[in-house]
Amino acid sequence: MSILVVGSVAFDNVLTPSGKKDNLLGGAATYFALAASYFTEVRVVGVVGEDFTTEHENVLKQRGIDTRGIEHAQGKTFRWGGQYLDNLNEAKTDFTDLNVFENFQPRIPAEYKNTEFLFLANIHPTLQATVRRELAGVKLTGGDTMNYWIRGTNSELRETLRLMDILTINDTEAKMLANESNLPRAAHKVLAMGPKALVIKHGEYGATIFFREGAFGVGRHPFRAPALPIEEVKDPTGAGDSFAGGFMGYIASQKDVNREIIKRALFYGGVMGSFAVEQFGTERLQTLSREEIDARFQVFRELTHLE
Amino acid sequence: MSILVVGSVAFDNVLTPSGKKDNLLGGAATYFALAASYFTEVRVVGVVGEDFTTEHENVLKQRGIDTRGIEHAQGKTFRWGGQYLDNLNEAKTDFTDLNVFENFQPRIPAEYKNTEFLFLANIHPTLQATVRRELAGVKLTGGDTMNYWIRGTNSELRETLRLMDILTINDTEAKMLANESNLPRAAHKVLAMGPKALVIKHGEYGATIFFREGAFGVGRHPFRAPALPIEEVKDPTGAGDSFAGGFMGYIASQKDVNREIIKRALFYGGVMGSFAVEQFGTERLQTLSREEIDARFQVFRELTHLE
Repeated sequence: MSILVVGSVAFDNVLTPSGKKDNLLGGAATYFALAASYFTEVRVVGVVGEDFTTEHENVLKQRGIDTRGIEHAQGKTFRWGGQYLDNLNEAKTDFTDLNVFENFQPRIPAEYKNTEFLFLANIHPTLQATVRRELAGVKLTGGDTMNYWIRGTNSELRETLRLMDILTINDTEAKMLANESNLPRAAHKVLAMGPKALVIKHGEYGATIFFREGAFGVGRHPFRAPALPIEEVKDPTGAGDSFAGGFMGYIASQKDVNREIIKRALFYGGVMGSFAVEQFGTERLQTLSREEIDARFQVFRELTHLE
Repeated sequence: MSILVVGSVAFDNVLTPSGKKDNLLGGAATYFALAASYFTEVRVVGVVGEDFTTEHENVLKQRGIDTRGIEHAQGKTFRWGGQYLDNLNEAKTDFTDLNVFENFQPRIPAEYKNTEFLFLANIHPTLQATVRRELAGVKLTGGDTMNYWIRGTNSELRETLRLMDILTINDTEAKMLANESNLPRAAHKVLAMGPKALVIKHGEYGATIFFREGAFGVGRHPFRAPALPIEEVKDPTGAGDSFAGGFMGYIASQKDVNREIIKRALFYGGVMGSFAVEQFGTERLQTLSREEIDARFQVFRELTHLE
């Protein structure tokens, strides 16, 4: 089934221990869409500037991604620069030029109105809520947010959380959102704010999903998927968005949404995140095959499964 | 089969968000021995002072632990005080009074010479090496160390690492020992120093074991066991030593030592660590049953296993 992602399309300058690359095609929606495209039909709503060429758009189109929702505005595309020299797990931002993204007003093309799965990438929570309300018929909504919105637009975010089925954030964000330093307690507080399930991404340690009692199945036992210990992380940019793309993309490709599907999806999220960091930018996500993905899924399984 | 642990027996004063407790029976050898006692026959070599009473010794004896190797010296037992108010994952030390532990010279009783499994808890690497050489017939040697020895007695530690089969340390220690910030690369550097396998403990995220090519089986694929997301961590003291006790104790209880056994052992390590933190000091480890342990083993399995 189809999944729509709403979020940033960007150009990134990154500096990592493996080197420096400028003007890489990036942005949350880009990473998400590429990762999800190996599982299901993907649509994108975002905004780009005049520096976004046909060649850039073809990176998405070649993966069968529907780009009709990408608005071309006057001005420059969102640009971000960051480095990971001290810590591969956390970017140090050098600059953020929002450019055309500053006044982004998501417009959902008529052709997208039948979208069944929705992912609200990290944008202003009020914009997330507007999109969600416009697509009243979606079967399942996932979303992301960040410290900036948790601090600056907390009441708007709280409103939006009531419209999300699955929230995907990292440890720091979960603790900040819940104002609670114990992770499972933080998770239950966040679930009480609205989402049926909460995915907490632990970076190199994998991810844990917490469920509201009875959501998608029985009980509220969490589930944890590993991450692959990777010897050369060339560029961590987009790992979390690629995780979300694999996770949501796999869910959208299945007939049902139940706990067992969601658990497998969590593994697929880890798989797509692990591919993303192997090359700079979206390079590795452009040329994968489903066979490579399923082979790595088996590696993840063996990494953590007892006989 | 029997396992011998050599290490500290101590009294701890701890302050955690759950409260303050003084004069708790603690020390690496104590936590290790109690955790391992649910799996196999355990022997302890350590030193205590005159403040260590029959009542304290009975905590170990009631679990069937052989305490004949605990030397009673004139003076006071090792005392440590620490707090976890800011961060449950890392103790802030208030004081360390080594007392009789300062001049600890491990003496192996004649009755212990047939010991098959050995665990060298966190003591001076030269003492670790001496014990290992004295027990030339052991089948498998595990060990621990810490930042203090990595920095202060690096060449002695390097010598000792060549005598260990399995080293169990945490992320920070592994990175410091290897002088390498990437975890799997650090792991391979540490394995090149001698151990056949390296367990890296990730605290609330579980643990990963890395193998030298061909050690205990085929290949050098790592394996990762989860930790349980715990809502109330009353006292994190001894979690790592309890992990090691469960891990090594399970291995010592089995006829063979192979990858599949070691993988299960890694899960049992996590299980014993998860019990340890539920109460202050060693309280929870004193009154467990093997049934409770195996039930939690199943919870760990379900936490991370796909159908």
